[in-house]
Amino acid sequence: MKPTPKPPRNPAPLLALGAHPDDIEFGCGGVVALETRAGRPAHLVVCSRGESATYGTPAERVVETEQAAALLGATVEFIELDGDAHLEVRAEHAIKLAGLLRRVRPGILLAPSLIENQHPDHARLGRLARDAARLARYGGVDELRDSPPHPIGQLFYYAVTPEAEPPDITPVLVDVSAPDILAAWTAAMEAHTSQTSARNYVELQLTRARLRGLRAGIGHAIALFPNDPLVLDSLAPVSRGARRF
Amino acid sequence: MKPTPKPPRNPAPLLALGAHPDDIEFGCGGVVALETRAGRPAHLVVCSRGESATYGTPAERVVETEQAAALLGATVEFIELDGDAHLEVRAEHAIKLAGLLRRVRPGILLAPSLIENQHPDHARLGRLARDAARLARYGGVDELRDSPPHPIGQLFYYAVTPEAEPPDITPVLVDVSAPDILAAWTAAMEAHTSQTSARNYVELQLTRARLRGLRAGIGHAIALFPNDPLVLDSLAPVSRGARRF
Amino acid sequence: MKPTPKPPRNPAPLLALGAHPDDIEFGCGGVVALETRAGRPAHLVVCSRGESATYGTPAERVVETEQAAALLGATVEFIELDGDAHLEVRAEHAIKLAGLLRRVRPGILLAPSLIENQHPDHARLGRLARDAARLARYGGVDELRDSPPHPIGQLFYYAVTPEAEPPDITPVLVDVSAPDILAAWTAAMEAHTSQTSARNYVELQLTRARLRGLRAGIGHAIALFPNDPLVLDSLAPVSRGARRF
Amino acid sequence: MKPTPKPPRNPAPLLALGAHPDDIEFGCGGVVALETRAGRPAHLVVCSRGESATYGTPAERVVETEQAAALLGATVEFIELDGDAHLEVRAEHAIKLAGLLRRVRPGILLAPSLIENQHPDHARLGRLARDAARLARYGGVDELRDSPPHPIGQLFYYAVTPEAEPPDITPVLVDVSAPDILAAWTAAMEAHTSQTSARNYVELQLTRARLRGLRAGIGHAIALFPNDPLVLDSLAPVSRGARRF
Amino acid sequence: MKPTPKPPRNPAPLLALGAHPDDIEFGCGGVVALETRAGRPAHLVVCSRGESATYGTPAERVVETEQAAALLGATVEFIELDGDAHLEVRAEHAIKLAGLLRRVRPGILLAPSLIENQHPDHARLGRLARDAARLARYGGVDELRDSPPHPIGQLFYYAVTPEAEPPDITPVLVDVSAPDILAAWTAAMEAHTSQTSARNYVELQLTRARLRGLRAGIGHAIALFPNDPLVLDSLAPVSRGARRF
Amino acid sequence: MKPTPKPPRNPAPLLALGAHPDDIEFGCGGVVALETRAGRPAHLVVCSRGESATYGTPAERVVETEQAAALLGATVEFIELDGDAHLEVRAEHAIKLAGLLRRVRPGILLAPSLIENQHPDHARLGRLARDAARLARYGGVDELRDSPPHPIGQLFYYAVTPEAEPPDITPVLVDVSAPDILAAWTAAMEAHTSQTSARNYVELQLTRARLRGLRAGIGHAIALFPNDPLVLDSLAPVSRGARRF
Repeated sequence: MKPTPKPPRNPAPLLALGAHPDDIEFGCGGVVALETRAGRPAHLVVCSRGESATYGTPAERVVETEQAAALLGATVEFIELDGDAHLEVRAEHAIKLAGLLRRVRPGILLAPSLIENQHPDHARLGRLARDAARLARYGGVDELRDSPPHPIGQLFYYAVTPEAEPPDITPVLVDVSAPDILAAWTAAMEAHTSQTSARNYVELQLTRARLRGLRAGIGHAIALFPNDPLVLDSLAPVSRGARRF
Repeated sequence: MKPTPKPPRNPAPLLALGAHPDDIEFGCGGVVALETRAGRPAHLVVCSRGESATYGTPAERVVETEQAAALLGATVEFIELDGDAHLEVRAEHAIKLAGLLRRVRPGILLAPSLIENQHPDHARLGRLARDAARLARYGGVDELRDSPPHPIGQLFYYAVTPEAEPPDITPVLVDVSAPDILAAWTAAMEAHTSQTSARNYVELQLTRARLRGLRAGIGHAIALFPNDPLVLDSLAPVSRGARRF
Repeated sequence: MKPTPKPPRNPAPLLALGAHPDDIEFGCGGVVALETRAGRPAHLVVCSRGESATYGTPAERVVETEQAAALLGATVEFIELDGDAHLEVRAEHAIKLAGLLRRVRPGILLAPSLIENQHPDHARLGRLARDAARLARYGGVDELRDSPPHPIGQLFYYAVTPEAEPPDITPVLVDVSAPDILAAWTAAMEAHTSQTSARNYVELQLTRARLRGLRAGIGHAIALFPNDPLVLDSLAPVSRGARRF
Repeated sequence: MKPTPKPPRNPAPLLALGAHPDDIEFGCGGVVALETRAGRPAHLVVCSRGESATYGTPAERVVETEQAAALLGATVEFIELDGDAHLEVRAEHAIKLAGLLRRVRPGILLAPSLIENQHPDHARLGRLARDAARLARYGGVDELRDSPPHPIGQLFYYAVTPEAEPPDITPVLVDVSAPDILAAWTAAMEAHTSQTSARNYVELQLTRARLRGLRAGIGHAIALFPNDPLVLDSLAPVSRGARRF
Repeated sequence: MKPTPKPPRNPAPLLALGAHPDDIEFGCGGVVALETRAGRPAHLVVCSRGESATYGTPAERVVETEQAAALLGATVEFIELDGDAHLEVRAEHAIKLAGLLRRVRPGILLAPSLIENQHPDHARLGRLARDAARLARYGGVDELRDSPPHPIGQLFYYAVTPEAEPPDITPVLVDVSAPDILAAWTAAMEAHTSQTSARNYVELQLTRARLRGLRAGIGHAIALFPNDPLVLDSLAPVSRGARRF
Repeated sequence: MKPTPKPPRNPAPLLALGAHPDDIEFGCGGVVALETRAGRPAHLVVCSRGESATYGTPAERVVETEQAAALLGATVEFIELDGDAHLEVRAEHAIKLAGLLRRVRPGILLAPSLIENQHPDHARLGRLARDAARLARYGGVDELRDSPPHPIGQLFYYAVTPEAEPPDITPVLVDVSAPDILAAWTAAMEAHTSQTSARNYVELQLTRARLRGLRAGIGHAIALFPNDPLVLDSLAPVSRGARRF
């Protein structure tokens, strides 16, 4: 094989969107940890403070999120849309997120999946993220004229719970078995103590990742669901499949 | 980013299965050319001599296939199953193909897709290939005791015609736009002169690849459909998506 | 078999939501009649007065609905969302319905299916109902602080017309063949005289239920579509299947 | 509610079909244990002796299977079709299984799912089982004239591995959390020592059942997939849903 | 609009395939009657004598079929494949049917649908018919050299029962409401007295067609499912849709 | 065959809806040209002036659209909804479009497909169009009382790009191979010079139509996706299928 070119020295950032303070960590925290440890900058954007949840105050949730982000090696910010449990699919939200994309200029965008049978904010944020990725490329949107258009590389959906995994998209499975990755992910989830003290969320996620890993013959894996087909220059990076039983 | 390890010096071969002498070339010849030019050995196995086709004698078809394989940088052999237009899904065929897999020991296996609304031999060979990839791993099959078990890395389906593209698998798109790749693929298709003189098969395939390429913002692309989810160590190789319009 | 525990003396109510005055009766009236005759309280909530329909005044529709509910053994109330033919998917509507769920505290919730190719109000109400069932469980929603959280047992979708039957959910078929049930259902549909005088709605529903019944080897059956998988302690209650031809 | 009639004193047996000695135990052993402990007779029929597997001799596999069946409270027999890794879909096999159904006369039939991307014997046995359930009802099949026709109540598919779960059938989730059920199931799986010493099959199944259980807010659950819609006389037995997150 | 050219004076025949003596009549008899009354020749080919059915002798079934065909205005013949309840998907059967296609040279081919959850012979005949339609076009199949290749115009699947309706193909609905058509269809079904005396098959079919008709705002309709997209020169013939509720 | 009645002298108009000035032309312009040349009036309604696009001013876009409509033989008007890149699914928009339907009174309605992974305005306009077609039939909607109800014949979706083709609807393929039709379509696309000078949109569409045509054995074809099943009086107009390879 011809030598593979080294990865670019400054890989485009990863941007992850979450509707609530713990969604990113529970749904794809291991992937964020994996990428930051490989040198890719990661930025988390959380669109509420969890103010409608059963447990935890908004102030507590913000602190937990900042701790979790640090554990994942990522920066984090909060933005305002309609608030927890009140999110709607509005054009102005998609445009606001498109402005965020033009500012962060990510190569990879992570957003909650479009499956509606979960917390209603999740799928709506996913739809807004998909629309934002498109609007960020268009030159003429008035509200976005301050920053130049930006095309992302790929949008991957993550599933906060197993029910949210889209059945009609073939996932890619990201190996998060390395001990330091798994530990960072677990710590980031556990940083959300207001949530984890009440319900077994961490067990849910680790069980899910372990089941994915067992099926693939590895330790733990997280499924991501590409919004568009992957474009490849070679089959070399995709020559591992996920079937061991 | 941490430096990417170089590809292995001796990458596992690519094995492509075709039901008829021109199926591989028309369905995924550009991918074979891309991989061989990158240093991966490729072996084509054709399971009939096209003896039921409208045009061309079996002897002519064999010669055309050998020429096409050479143009793709691949080796080729013919094996006997039930013959053109007579293929059935039999356990003995799957076991025979499993023996082939143990002999060639590929990392990547290409086979026609499972969609049934095409030439009946295509989908049947696809099913046999999928079963063979599994049987090749089992230690106790009597007929296979001569050679050690072999697990492939990934099985990708190719579609000989657009109708054969499976709607429920998210494809990967392989960029075959490089002039030498596109030229080798075109030449390999045109080597099947007994077929191309009668119908516009080459135009069909190049139009299809151009449409895929236009959608992805590149020149030409061929879609492959993974049988199992891809397993990845990093998002770096999958950070290009296929949407340009 | 171990003796089955008797059903609870005070089974949790059934709550059925309809977008228009006759939707519940046409879509699942027989199920309501079956459950009330078995001792389960049922409450119907209708979200418009049918003010955009071709036939009948709002005042007439209300009277017809009250008569129909009485025939089904159910109570009924009307609530205001956006009005007939004007319903939109708004967070405030979902929260309002969540408040209703906390007040009625049903075990079973019936709502119109999510298939969009029907009267636009139907699918929107279904989506609002699904979201409401989730929000009713969350402790922190400001607008809902007056009443304690309430988890329903199961949400079933009904289809007002055959086109609204979701193709991707395996239905359960409820046997409504008993003469008194069938008579009560038919009478409840016919109570909507402003509608049935103009079009053959009753024939549509009875033909549909008869076709379901014929397929299951019984008289008449109504299909319901569970939003989430059923959880069972035993296979005993699900040991009848729906295939007779 | 009207008093529920007690279950029949002699419930119709459960019949489970497996292609290999451990398929039933791994795929749905907990359900078998649950039903036998509730007083329903269960009979396991295994269609090979695992003679093509990597580990274990046929004689060992038979002994392990008999031990496992006893732990589940079931009887067991072996029948000959084409042999391990050689099964084909033949009309004579379906007729042979129909004869078995007429002899055992089950109310509930369990068979491996029809998803083809698993061990090829699994899906083929599932298809044969489905056809057999139909042929067992027809009066005129020559080979079956010795025994009277028998209609089963319901055919449920089980999935030996997660990949085999059919995405287009809404499952029912059977709660196998009771300590004695879970212990019996685990012991039956571990009885297949020739298999479990080599690979972590038991962990795979318990992880899968735990993930189903976590999603449903219970301990462990096994998913079964009905071949035909369930027919119900009341919503009472299906008023629990599977969503807790 | 430009004047529509008149239909050809000698329209290509309709060929309908049935696995058992009454399948065509129950599944699509009204369409056959409609077409023959419009001047198109129709030929029915039945692939068994119903020798495994619960009711009726083969000799009785043949007589009933001949009477039914006459009522539909069609000719009929019986061919031998593997016999009732014994049909398998064999290449030789597809080739035999391809020979039939070359002899009859139909424009339209009707065959049972591919849905497997029905009498096993139905879906297998459907698959053989689809393959035969393809093989009939290929010039080189040895067994077919006696007659020139023949491409059909379109293959439509019919569903013998509602369960057999393919959910993934958009049907065309054929209006069979005209009194003479409906009468001929009903009479043809009732000609199978050995079957209709035992079960309510005729009611099943008329109820199904009435439900389709009610939905389309007409009397009765039969759904056919095209194997390939329709090719049109104008939208004029497809400007009626099927939604009335 | 009985003589076909001639088409009505005054066929009901075709109404095509586009979200942006070039959507109709790129997505289904050839069909519009075909129908107008056959004598059917066509009216295009464009719901923005493309004011958020990368290239072209609103004034330029209007002029280009008027030129394109003239080339297609159609009339055109612009209406205001929320503006380019700002469209939302609002009940008032559906009612506004229903009023348009009552004014134009089309037999055939063309609208962009419902697939969401495209420009967000496209799918939203498609949903509004589908709802409008229903509301236009209801007698009681206050805002619509000025004009009598109007039922359309059929709603067909068009796909502006290949990604927007709905995978779950069987398309009809309209043959646009006639030289004058193909020339008119091409000219209408090229009239949008502000767009075509920047990207290869015309090549995308002609490549797509050529691929459809190659598959059907004709020159070029455009796929339309019916919202409801087609209702037919005869199989004569649908006896051509789309498979040539």
